[in-house]
Amino acid sequence: MNILKERILQEAVVLGEDVLKVSSFLNHQIDPDFMAELGKEIAQRFEGEKITKILTVEASGIPIALATGMAMHVPVIFAKKHSTSNVSGSAYRTIVYSFTHNTEYTVLVESDYLDAGDRVLIVDDFLANGRSIYGLLELLEEAGAQPVGIAVAIEKGFQSGGRELRAEGYRVESLVIIDRMDEDEIVFRDGNYDEDEDDE
Amino acid sequence: MNILKERILQEAVVLGEDVLKVSSFLNHQIDPDFMAELGKEIAQRFEGEKITKILTVEASGIPIALATGMAMHVPVIFAKKHSTSNVSGSAYRTIVYSFTHNTEYTVLVESDYLDAGDRVLIVDDFLANGRSIYGLLELLEEAGAQPVGIAVAIEKGFQSGGRELRAEGYRVESLVIIDRMDEDEIVFRDGNYDEDEDDE
Repeated sequence: MNILKERILQEAVVLGEDVLKVSSFLNHQIDPDFMAELGKEIAQRFEGEKITKILTVEASGIPIALATGMAMHVPVIFAKKHSTSNVSGSAYRTIVYSFTHNTEYTVLVESDYLDAGDRVLIVDDFLANGRSIYGLLELLEEAGAQPVGIAVAIEKGFQSGGRELRAEGYRVESLVIIDRMDEDEIVFRDGNYDEDEDDE
Repeated sequence: MNILKERILQEAVVLGEDVLKVSSFLNHQIDPDFMAELGKEIAQRFEGEKITKILTVEASGIPIALATGMAMHVPVIFAKKHSTSNVSGSAYRTIVYSFTHNTEYTVLVESDYLDAGDRVLIVDDFLANGRSIYGLLELLEEAGAQPVGIAVAIEKGFQSGGRELRAEGYRVESLVIIDRMDEDEIVFRDGNYDEDEDDE
């Protein structure tokens, strides 16, 4: 997606080996009109898929999930993060390990908001190792809901999450994939698929 | 705001003395088209105020802040919450006490995203005791930015935050104010001001 590539090249900062700081427009400060465009693009890619719900996880997934929900006119659920598993009430929940913070947390969705008949699109800002996406997939499995696909703004193609998810048969749509990056250069992948698959 | 009152009467659940559960449409599951309407209403109330930025705090403030930003076409910043004050980098930060969780946390905005010239609208889902709003006001003061007003979806009029903020001269726009509530009844205030002030 060209407008996202351009924005990354203009504003993103690479920190260390694998941190891409996009706080000026994607998570922390948000450009709402730009975010609306990202949401429309995701909606377009999943047109005809009869999505009934969008699922993300707090906090930085919320803006792009909401923008997608506005474009699709379907409810958006944000899973809540808790530092303990001590959560009361009827909910689907799972434990997610965070590499970034080297800690575990509980991710949960109240059971009222996911049904066995739901066709769910998972949306997030980043896909790196995929831990939080796998956590959301577990919640859908608990609920008996159908994961129709996964849409993210930025996939770090040099980490394994996207490759693993596609290998397991999930449809993963990344608005951009970064193949490598350092302080001097950010290199995007052409197309949306692994190098050993056909481009579509 | 009538569509919000109706939705609260249809879907909200009162838990205990002061918890209003609106997870089915406002925070946890979100109705994006409805949220867009709330954003437009806030934008309309602050029309002509030359707002340059919207400020909220993660996570449940993000949807309504983003919807407002989309209606106003200005950047939205969500302050980040950290459980420790041990945060590196250049940022405006303050400590907020949470009555809900009986704990303190640090709220911060990176200093790149707030300028002395900014005219800022604070937006949040709820206003109760006002602790998080006061935290955001402190960040604006650190930055030398101008707080133009505070807009919330639901004010709990039986808690002191709104009254105190108005007494200090802040413009507070609540889409609805709840004067009292229990399991059987939710009573809204007519108008947006304290009973001892003139309605406008």
